Amino acid sequence: MKLVFTKSNLNKAVNIVSKAVPSKTTMPILECILIDAETNDIKFTANDMELGIETKIEGQILEKGKVAINAKIFSDIVRKLPDDDITIETDANFTATISSCKSVFHLAGQSGEDFSYLPAIERDKKISLSQFSMKELINQTIFSTAMNDNNKMMTGELFEVQENALRVVALDGHRIAIRKVNLSEEAQAVKAIVPGKTLVEIQKILSNDAESTLTLYFTQNHILFEFENTKVVSRLIEGEYFKINNMLSSDYETKVTVNKKAFLDSIDRSTLMIKEGDKKPIIVDIKEDDLCISVKSEIGNMKENVAITKEGKDIMIGFNPKFLIDALRAIDDENVDMYMVSPKAPLFIRDKEENYIYLILPVNFSN
Amino acid sequence: MKLVFTKSNLNKAVNIVSKAVPSKTTMPILECILIDAETNDIKFTANDMELGIETKIEGQILEKGKVAINAKIFSDIVRKLPDDDITIETDANFTATISSCKSVFHLAGQSGEDFSYLPAIERDKKISLSQFSMKELINQTIFSTAMNDNNKMMTGELFEVQENALRVVALDGHRIAIRKVNLSEEAQAVKAIVPGKTLVEIQKILSNDAESTLTLYFTQNHILFEFENTKVVSRLIEGEYFKINNMLSSDYETKVTVNKKAFLDSIDRSTLMIKEGDKKPIIVDIKEDDLCISVKSEIGNMKENVAITKEGKDIMIGFNPKFLIDALRAIDDENVDMYMVSPKAPLFIRDKEENYIYLILPVNFSN
Repeated sequence: MKLVFTKSNLNKAVNIVSKAVPSKTTMPILECILIDAETNDIKFTANDMELGIETKIEGQILEKGKVAINAKIFSDIVRKLPDDDITIETDANFTATISSCKSVFHLAGQSGEDFSYLPAIERDKKISLSQFSMKELINQTIFSTAMNDNNKMMTGELFEVQENALRVVALDGHRIAIRKVNLSEEAQAVKAIVPGKTLVEIQKILSNDAESTLTLYFTQNHILFEFENTKVVSRLIEGEYFKINNMLSSDYETKVTVNKKAFLDSIDRSTLMIKEGDKKPIIVDIKEDDLCISVKSEIGNMKENVAITKEGKDIMIGFNPKFLIDALRAIDDENVDMYMVSPKAPLFIRDKEENYIYLILPVNFSN
Repeated sequence: MKLVFTKSNLNKAVNIVSKAVPSKTTMPILECILIDAETNDIKFTANDMELGIETKIEGQILEKGKVAINAKIFSDIVRKLPDDDITIETDANFTATISSCKSVFHLAGQSGEDFSYLPAIERDKKISLSQFSMKELINQTIFSTAMNDNNKMMTGELFEVQENALRVVALDGHRIAIRKVNLSEEAQAVKAIVPGKTLVEIQKILSNDAESTLTLYFTQNHILFEFENTKVVSRLIEGEYFKINNMLSSDYETKVTVNKKAFLDSIDRSTLMIKEGDKKPIIVDIKEDDLCISVKSEIGNMKENVAITKEGKDIMIGFNPKFLIDALRAIDDENVDMYMVSPKAPLFIRDKEENYIYLILPVNFSN
């Protein structure tokens, strides 16, 4: 095999597929990128069996062939080579020679015979949206997934297509994040639970381009993200997701409208009084046109007032400040509306169209 | 005590003195910043007994007094407060109230009676240079000090004033870094070993301003850096520094001139073949007008040629690539001159005026 690439094309392709290379594995073949130039296209693939990425790359094929090369070393070399043409050549023993200008590297490669290609995906149920929208949907919800997998379902996000809208839901037992985007074309109903890890990786390779289209295909067990020259296939999490709609309610006793930045900065300051790892709640005391945040700890105490407009009853309610901060940071609006029923019932932050809903459970506090 | 500051003044002063607050200590008073407004000036001081920093800060004194406050929490609060006036007030129990806009913090403070002020320094032997020059001198040598203090002397740098020049020397047993700047005024001879830790911290608070003057005062046991409103006092390391001049030689068998960036990039790439923690050397093979860098390891092998102009004999010599990289990064020149005698003798990288000299010991290699 002998191929020639520009550094920038090669670097881009290696970066994309590297996202599917596991950081730890006992199977050396999974640490590899497969370079396949057996046809007239050059394709790079990485696949950790849960998540697989394949991308087509522009380059000259001087001699057809394929080889699997350790992804980490390969990407380090490509990154540090000068901005010039890079040649990759293999011999009969699959030793890869990577050369550019006066620099020559030799690496032991593998035949790639035991490499797993991406599974074939039926292109039956599909939706399209911009890469930018998908990236935003992920960023605005992913923090609400659970980190440890005591409950596997909580580590993923529900992708629900219904009435020409995609709704994405993440929950970790203390909070729920919901985002909705309308789709431009009619689509079949879908419910799929996508692993959080897949979403974290795909978020890194999606562009911020609102014009560039991404197509999602759903099957029983897989989701395929297709954009530009790249395909990302991920297994889905099996099972029935939580019944979200039962947890949502639009009743409230108190409605508060607050400047997002002022509220966020104030909560951020309140966390200075809470030691890392300490679960101390902050107390939000809503009285008339004033919201008072306070916290008292062995470090000291803090009190701050934020201007609000209020509808309904006064209320005093405790929160884990991190949950409020995460939700507020994910919202772009200048002002946010918050809805509460009682100090024991969840707080809702949502817009009128319900393009976003953030539900946060309150915390008990001693006054 | 009651004082009012602008946020930016307060933030700057807290950042400066925080550099002398130890990250770990068993004495809570050392974790504090002393705010002293007992006279008509406001001074902030921190002192870990090795290194002490005092800075004068502009502010309104509404009521005189002093208090010691935990530096970490105080600086976090100041940083996160809005960009507005900040008031610091203490009561009879030394509880500090820090307030700005609608935000109020209460922290337990201390009287500051047991706080150690900076030692008085005799202003007899002194030199002046720009803050920028001092910052550069430190950055261009500090990497050559030893990290662990098996030999205390190696953790510091020699400051030597002689014939109206300041020479700074750092060595760790494998290499030596020497930088020299000429002084504009006549000065008394000085030899002082300044702790590396002091230099690391002072480098962070010096500005990049080539117009702004820094004055250094030397006594038997201390060095004082004075600039703008700030004084930094550090203990010196006791003892007689290594006899550097005996280690320097201007004889050579091979002189090589090379483009610094090309050489540096090439060495950088060669390190890709060396696992972290592995002490494998790179081999530099100089023949005619060509310098060939090569390395062979279990990862793979790499070879690269760099154009040079050469005087004298061919030579093949091994190096720890990190030492070459550190020295080359500290040099601003487009081309550098390297002088060698044999594969067992040190390499010198130096300019004609000897404003910089980097000595690097070679490493044995099997061919």
